[in-house]
Amino acid sequence: MSTLQADARQYAALPSPFTLRRGGKLYGARLAYETWGHLNAQANNVILLYTGMSPGAHAASSAADPCPGWWEDMLGAGKPIDTQRWFVVCVNSLGSCKGSTGPASIMPTSESQPYRMDFPDLCVEDIAAANLALLAHLGIAQIEVAIGCSMGGMGVLAHAALAPGCAKHAVLVSSAAYAEPFAIGIRSLQRQMVLADPNFNSGKYASPTEVGGMGLARKLGVISYRSADEWRVRFSRQRVRNPSQQAFGTEFEVERYLQGHADRWTGSFDPCSYIYLSRAMDWFDLAEHGDGQSIETAYAKLKFQRALVLGVASDILFPLVQQQELARALSRAGTKVEFHAMPSLQGHDAFLVDMESFGPAIAHFLNSL
Amino acid sequence: MSTLQADARQYAALPSPFTLRRGGKLYGARLAYETWGHLNAQANNVILLYTGMSPGAHAASSAADPCPGWWEDMLGAGKPIDTQRWFVVCVNSLGSCKGSTGPASIMPTSESQPYRMDFPDLCVEDIAAANLALLAHLGIAQIEVAIGCSMGGMGVLAHAALAPGCAKHAVLVSSAAYAEPFAIGIRSLQRQMVLADPNFNSGKYASPTEVGGMGLARKLGVISYRSADEWRVRFSRQRVRNPSQQAFGTEFEVERYLQGHADRWTGSFDPCSYIYLSRAMDWFDLAEHGDGQSIETAYAKLKFQRALVLGVASDILFPLVQQQELARALSRAGTKVEFHAMPSLQGHDAFLVDMESFGPAIAHFLNSL
Repeated sequence: MSTLQADARQYAALPSPFTLRRGGKLYGARLAYETWGHLNAQANNVILLYTGMSPGAHAASSAADPCPGWWEDMLGAGKPIDTQRWFVVCVNSLGSCKGSTGPASIMPTSESQPYRMDFPDLCVEDIAAANLALLAHLGIAQIEVAIGCSMGGMGVLAHAALAPGCAKHAVLVSSAAYAEPFAIGIRSLQRQMVLADPNFNSGKYASPTEVGGMGLARKLGVISYRSADEWRVRFSRQRVRNPSQQAFGTEFEVERYLQGHADRWTGSFDPCSYIYLSRAMDWFDLAEHGDGQSIETAYAKLKFQRALVLGVASDILFPLVQQQELARALSRAGTKVEFHAMPSLQGHDAFLVDMESFGPAIAHFLNSL
Repeated sequence: MSTLQADARQYAALPSPFTLRRGGKLYGARLAYETWGHLNAQANNVILLYTGMSPGAHAASSAADPCPGWWEDMLGAGKPIDTQRWFVVCVNSLGSCKGSTGPASIMPTSESQPYRMDFPDLCVEDIAAANLALLAHLGIAQIEVAIGCSMGGMGVLAHAALAPGCAKHAVLVSSAAYAEPFAIGIRSLQRQMVLADPNFNSGKYASPTEVGGMGLARKLGVISYRSADEWRVRFSRQRVRNPSQQAFGTEFEVERYLQGHADRWTGSFDPCSYIYLSRAMDWFDLAEHGDGQSIETAYAKLKFQRALVLGVASDILFPLVQQQELARALSRAGTKVEFHAMPSLQGHDAFLVDMESFGPAIAHFLNSL
């Protein structure tokens, strides 16, 4: 008896060729996405959800896939993003490895060879352009709300820069209008940990599970996603019950926690997808859409009517000053902005775990529309 | 004609065997140290300086070694630590690789074989015990002020825990009474970057210059030593003039800056010294000196008359809350404490670079003694 993995993903072909911002072309590319709720007759209840770097389109469970999604407590009937009202579309970002075309996909010119390092340069704008193509495929001309978390917030800004007014409203969660040098430094080092792994082998790894550098990079990811304040309370100096006998092995609970994250990550995300998406974030700068003038010119293009901007004081990767700047700039550009600094201890990841703070803020904003 | 590298280091033999806190024994071990100023007749003008993890004993220039030291602007005639008044002793920590015995030293049982991974477990308390032995060697029974920066502050606390009252006063700069889980997480990952490098070869590296993992670890070090606030101003999104043509090569100034740090570090610090000292910091917990009772019991032992505690709000590695806790706990233990939160943007490293803030604070404290 065979068991089938539940899967709610749908697929949409992108125009072929699909030309990328830096000049590359993809042939026969596709996006994976999931939907919840129903498109109403006026087609004016659409929420488009841009994910952070690593999640796939499975934001929440559904009849087709009852597994909990990455924003399970945020999205569903009666939840803050209430699928009794909204038709929600969540897309696996172009370049990722969870159903959409990316460096792990087989090249159309080949029988079985994945792109890997031959994938063309990828920008956040390409992710947005692909999502715009998906909307066209779905026959949706305008969306009520574009929601983006972390990298996804960059995607929402790129979306509006490429198609001003397409998104009437925006929810930007722990995001940024451009990558700052501290975040660039962290991501640059993460990529090098992958590139330096002999098993990465210039992208010719036999299997993603062999690229141990991904585990190291993930540990730095988790360090940058959480906060010292959270870990002080959560781990203190607690020792593991059975410390490793290896030299410099795991002794502290915080080390075991990081190792667990590394183990779950390695093999589950494609190393090339990872470094391409990571670099795309570094490159992102809304100012590039300012017609050679200023970032204010770019903000003025976005044409959001209303926006909710959420940030967290303990976030070291997309720091609160970037959310404050987003809120101020959108407001100056004529958007009616609601801004909240969340009290969460969990740093950048708070939007995934501190539902008590993020749930009501997002519910309140959506209910006011 | 041969040129001689200027060198002001002096050496003191440690008692042999020198028994370490976790049971190991060192035979024929030594410390490298430098001094500035003159011991007065009453021998009551001694400052003992504990360094951070990486610096050597060369804190400042002198006639014997005119090269600038790591705290050049802090230490010298007429400087905040005024060598016209004070006799300053700075020690290269036991376990380091800048003249003192450590994992890079030749084992006494061998002709030419360094300890490397056969070095016994090293604790911050061993660094302090070695420094106490050095004081005995120098005929100094009591020191006026023990000054410690970063790991060095842990050393000062260990010093006082092992020899209560030996240091009359303390200056603790960007330090901590114990390692917190966030710092442990960062250091644990740094060690793994070294251990994962095939050229590390379980400590059997042909030369430290070959261990590229040290460069990666250093980059994370620099990331944790500085701050997003500093880099926002210093680098913004500035691109390098000649970007690398390699895939995922250096494009941003912040990447070039990190690469420069990595290049200068690799080969200049012994990989095994690095991971031993790194682990020593993780292990340090003043509470272990509380006779099985509490950390308050440990603080009560230290017997500092006065203390200056300095911290920086932008420090993510030894965060300000740890300096506040140090100040409060010392105060409760009967020490007259002066505490300052410095406004520096440079994070943990501020004490090395923001002399305008740190110089006057330290000068004022020392002048008040």
